[in-house]
Amino acid sequence: MEKMTSDFNLKSFLKQNQKCIDDALEEFIPQPVGAFAQIHEAMRYSIFAGGKRLRPILCLASYHIFQSEQDDLSSILPAASALEMVHTYSLIHDDLPSMDNDDFRRGKPTNHKVYGEAVAVLAGDALLTLAFEVVSKTEKIGSETVNQVLQELALRSGTLGLIGGQILDLDAEGKTLSGDQLKAIHLHKTAALIQASIRMGAIVGGADEAPLKSLTLFGEKVGLAFQIVDDILDVESSTETLGKTAGKDVNQEKSTYPSVYGLAESKKMAEALKNEAIEEIDLFGEKGEPLKSLALYVIERKN
Amino acid sequence: MEKMTSDFNLKSFLKQNQKCIDDALEEFIPQPVGAFAQIHEAMRYSIFAGGKRLRPILCLASYHIFQSEQDDLSSILPAASALEMVHTYSLIHDDLPSMDNDDFRRGKPTNHKVYGEAVAVLAGDALLTLAFEVVSKTEKIGSETVNQVLQELALRSGTLGLIGGQILDLDAEGKTLSGDQLKAIHLHKTAALIQASIRMGAIVGGADEAPLKSLTLFGEKVGLAFQIVDDILDVESSTETLGKTAGKDVNQEKSTYPSVYGLAESKKMAEALKNEAIEEIDLFGEKGEPLKSLALYVIERKN
Repeated sequence: MEKMTSDFNLKSFLKQNQKCIDDALEEFIPQPVGAFAQIHEAMRYSIFAGGKRLRPILCLASYHIFQSEQDDLSSILPAASALEMVHTYSLIHDDLPSMDNDDFRRGKPTNHKVYGEAVAVLAGDALLTLAFEVVSKTEKIGSETVNQVLQELALRSGTLGLIGGQILDLDAEGKTLSGDQLKAIHLHKTAALIQASIRMGAIVGGADEAPLKSLTLFGEKVGLAFQIVDDILDVESSTETLGKTAGKDVNQEKSTYPSVYGLAESKKMAEALKNEAIEEIDLFGEKGEPLKSLALYVIERKN
Repeated sequence: MEKMTSDFNLKSFLKQNQKCIDDALEEFIPQPVGAFAQIHEAMRYSIFAGGKRLRPILCLASYHIFQSEQDDLSSILPAASALEMVHTYSLIHDDLPSMDNDDFRRGKPTNHKVYGEAVAVLAGDALLTLAFEVVSKTEKIGSETVNQVLQELALRSGTLGLIGGQILDLDAEGKTLSGDQLKAIHLHKTAALIQASIRMGAIVGGADEAPLKSLTLFGEKVGLAFQIVDDILDVESSTETLGKTAGKDVNQEKSTYPSVYGLAESKKMAEALKNEAIEEIDLFGEKGEPLKSLALYVIERKN
């Protein structure tokens, strides 16, 4: 888990930022009381199910390249929290019986196993809606920037991003995919929201077009590597370590990087993407350190 | 169908504006070609399934109280179209087997009957996401106004609005409700988005707080009356006239206005709400005529 590069301490960076994000989510998601207690409880159940907060933390790390002020995060926490809401909504819907039909996620029963399918559908809808609401209320940054962030989130969560990836994934069931087809799925299903995370942080931070471009490429490469590692872990890890059913891809005869390229080649590809990703953000020097460490952490993780 | 008040011609107003909205939706929803043809086709299937465009047209009518310019609708069409997207997403998800389990909507097979449950879930998600994207890209109005419109849409579509209404509705299944409980469902499930429609139009039009307040009350009353009429039609109409299964409420032992108050009293209540609604917008005089005619049309409709 612990990775160190130069003086930057990733472990404490993660811990501190996870706390920030959890506090923000606690504030943004209504309490489970009153007439709507159940839906708010269902939203909270999946949001607080032990996620690593990777997307919000990537967002914060990207923001800090352009804004060194560490104390006041009020302008970036809405965007960071919205990313976790969108990620969580997509997991809730993805786990539904009509989709991947997963009973466990992060070692806990999935949302529909606890609250029933109808509430799970609505809890996902509600998190997606709340994500946009929270961003639209961001203070201290101009409303033009707020709109830019909203557009970014909507675009990369929509049919040309996350949802498009789900569709490609559904279409792929029971088929043997080419490497390009597999890449297209992961670019949409995984890389798009990671790119959104990094871009939204940079946009709130006030980044220009040129650094945004580098960060977008960085996000693409980290996103792809993340997914390749996911595929590798599905083969190599136990269900206990993963917190979700291991070997599921093989059992479902799903095309994965290991099934298309073999394990050794898949590992090489993840390694290459990692190096290319890091190269993309070399230009930020010391300020890019958190983002660099996060990339290493994500790609070298064991679960 | 045809209602006339003073010189205002509702029939031509509806026809003209339905065309505007259909054209805008045609433009805003991606074409069903390329890698994501299927999801875009599924979105279009439900959007172009013959809806009356009531919410977008209420939005336009409200806008025109404050903006008499009839030619250039480019600043209001994104909001108006977004409302139809949100309405349609909520119908797609509401029809799912795990929710209301409806096979027909507007006389056509429901989305999941045509595309399967997984795609229907995603088509709903995609319409919701696109609604926010489209609004966030509105041009010609300041970005502060855009944010206000987005907040309005998110708030009244979320757990304190539309989604909250769905939850209350689910909870009510198999229970005998009080009049107040029934009212709470319809305030959230139906009135909230109608209020959003009218408020968003007014906000884009540049309305102040005082007229917004009147319009909000108008929306509440029209929304409630709309639902009471819906309940009455379910009892009195044939499946053919409705385009959806008539008598469904009774068969499902659902509490409705007729079941709680009786048919005669329900009709009186709808009539009273209609008059109260119209009173709320008296202050707009001639400019409020389209909105007034729409209220009459909605409450006196036969399907």
